[in-house]
Amino acid sequence: MDPDFSPLDDLLEAEDADGYLVDDTSHNSTQKYLSGFEAHDPFVTLYTPEKTILLVSALEYGRAKKQSRADEVRRVAEYDYRELVSEHGPAEAKARAHAEFLDEYDVASVLTPERFPLGPADGLRERGVAVEAEESDRVTEIRATKTDEEIEHVRAAQNANEEAMRAAENLIAAADVEDGTLVYEGAPLTSERVKEEIEVTLLRHGCGLDDTIVACGANAADPHDQGSGPLHADEAIIIDIFPRSKETGYHADMTRTFVKGDPSEEIRERFDLTHEALNAALDAVEPGVTGADVHDVVCDRYEEAGYDTLRSNATAETGFIHSTGHGVGLDVHELPRIASNGEELKPGHVITIEPGLYDPSVGGVRIEDIAVVTEDGYENLTSYPVELVV
Amino acid sequence: MDPDFSPLDDLLEAEDADGYLVDDTSHNSTQKYLSGFEAHDPFVTLYTPEKTILLVSALEYGRAKKQSRADEVRRVAEYDYRELVSEHGPAEAKARAHAEFLDEYDVASVLTPERFPLGPADGLRERGVAVEAEESDRVTEIRATKTDEEIEHVRAAQNANEEAMRAAENLIAAADVEDGTLVYEGAPLTSERVKEEIEVTLLRHGCGLDDTIVACGANAADPHDQGSGPLHADEAIIIDIFPRSKETGYHADMTRTFVKGDPSEEIRERFDLTHEALNAALDAVEPGVTGADVHDVVCDRYEEAGYDTLRSNATAETGFIHSTGHGVGLDVHELPRIASNGEELKPGHVITIEPGLYDPSVGGVRIEDIAVVTEDGYENLTSYPVELVV
Repeated sequence: MDPDFSPLDDLLEAEDADGYLVDDTSHNSTQKYLSGFEAHDPFVTLYTPEKTILLVSALEYGRAKKQSRADEVRRVAEYDYRELVSEHGPAEAKARAHAEFLDEYDVASVLTPERFPLGPADGLRERGVAVEAEESDRVTEIRATKTDEEIEHVRAAQNANEEAMRAAENLIAAADVEDGTLVYEGAPLTSERVKEEIEVTLLRHGCGLDDTIVACGANAADPHDQGSGPLHADEAIIIDIFPRSKETGYHADMTRTFVKGDPSEEIRERFDLTHEALNAALDAVEPGVTGADVHDVVCDRYEEAGYDTLRSNATAETGFIHSTGHGVGLDVHELPRIASNGEELKPGHVITIEPGLYDPSVGGVRIEDIAVVTEDGYENLTSYPVELVV
Repeated sequence: MDPDFSPLDDLLEAEDADGYLVDDTSHNSTQKYLSGFEAHDPFVTLYTPEKTILLVSALEYGRAKKQSRADEVRRVAEYDYRELVSEHGPAEAKARAHAEFLDEYDVASVLTPERFPLGPADGLRERGVAVEAEESDRVTEIRATKTDEEIEHVRAAQNANEEAMRAAENLIAAADVEDGTLVYEGAPLTSERVKEEIEVTLLRHGCGLDDTIVACGANAADPHDQGSGPLHADEAIIIDIFPRSKETGYHADMTRTFVKGDPSEEIRERFDLTHEALNAALDAVEPGVTGADVHDVVCDRYEEAGYDTLRSNATAETGFIHSTGHGVGLDVHELPRIASNGEELKPGHVITIEPGLYDPSVGGVRIEDIAVVTEDGYENLTSYPVELVV
């Protein structure tokens, strides 16, 4: 099933533009989404309300014909690209070929993503094509609503994610404690070692990943600290895993907090409160509610318990100091925002809910599930248990 | 030791520009190189002949101060970014903050990489800053010459690469053959399974990677085929591994060709000839020689033996149908080119030499080493043996 591109058609009409142009590799999720094609070198996608056309190198032509969602695939060679390069150099050759390509489809004006490349844009402008970067980032708005197929891709990545979390938890469970430090197979058990276990498990289940967070104690009090060094008993260890399926490109995202040994009463209270905030936020998820509403539920819960939030104190450095969640798809962070500026939730939105509390003197606690908004509420794609003590 | 940025100074002077501006994440190697900083979100680097200044979010400020090679690090918050966003939206807020930032350093005109983002560029132009994408991609030229430290980074990645190649070869060696298909632990040994072994081994040695090629038989006759499905006895299996160190960001690159069982006389001849071509090309590597000269050595060898090359036949689909090699560094493919348009080699260039022969009726054979150009020749960074039969 193809996504609903009508909001893009509306934008083109409102801005009086003939088409939407992307010039990027498929590492750019808007390119991958619009083209339905994966390639490491930049290629061009021209979207018009009538059809989508790809312009690729000869090398990618056969694969693009087979794999992409485009109605037509063209080759730069059809525009005498090699001859143009020898005569004018690669930048001008590209501009000439692209201008001719657009002209063939009667496209004299295009909108582009905000980060469309400047050199090619100026090259087209010099040849009379109107090129305008559009701020609204309409395709990312369209991407927020997932098809059933996309939801299955996220679910598959989340299954791999749970295997990886299990491997991490098992490693921590199997460790001994010596002088307050976790020890495994005769060596201190480090963040790095647990991350390696997570990443190897993900690979074995068809996923890669950019980064993993395994942060312990005071490290974990900074929500952006990736964690390093030996893990300690009786301290909170935050594990946040956000793998990408190598096959589909879709992500999952989940966080758990573990303590090996005996958590302090302070850690336990924060954990229980965070678990309540998670459940309260999930309960609030349904179409028509905004991401801001869901974020407010979490802030309410924390503030009632006496903690700072960024809502109650914009410069807070302890307490709940990030937003409640975000959309997940081809990008690990995408729309909608579950935050003070969060959009209205719609069926098919895939979102995280990830409340957390941070304080250097206590450590960090965060619990994150991933869920899909349904017609009448949500389905939680997470089945991993929420238990503090390993 | 800092790289020699004087060619960039020369360019700025020739083009009468005040600075060189990059707005990208550190996934862009020019950004990583100029800034010496890694961040997943876009940030700004302003290079001037006097100094390099970073403009980052508050979140990255502390880390940028510690880790980057910049002389100064500034925060967008210093330009009332939040207030600007509420008043004008994120795109205009960014343009205003960046324009003010440039003005503070008396920079009224900038050159940028060819793929600088269009929206921010137009935003600066509207505020009177002259912004021009420069075609020569001068920083990639500078990046071609590695410092001793960079060479050590490549060497470390190559060590991990050799461990991964060893793991792959061991897996093929341990397989049985049933009806011509490799079988391991009761299941057909597939390209996918060997890739998994390679990628897990790389992870265990601190490297990630984008892709791996494990291609057998007719698959391997297309140099860009990544390979899939069961591996077969008596057929050539090309394994091409190009990992990236997670710590340093530098790559290595190596290819070997293996046959499990008995290679045909045809495969053996092509393998031996390719090995000779590799050694002849390496022998030709020294400062002052061009990448084109080295490529010619390989073409000579193949053509003398009666094979097509792209030099003798630009549309050849069998024979030696790619270039001889490329630079390796923060990008797995970078300057210099070891190809018909290859640049003059200089001490500190890190290059691959990767001759190969392809024919769907025979399969593919490729052997690739990675080497650094020295004052009087080259040092081969590859120690993995070149042996066909496993």
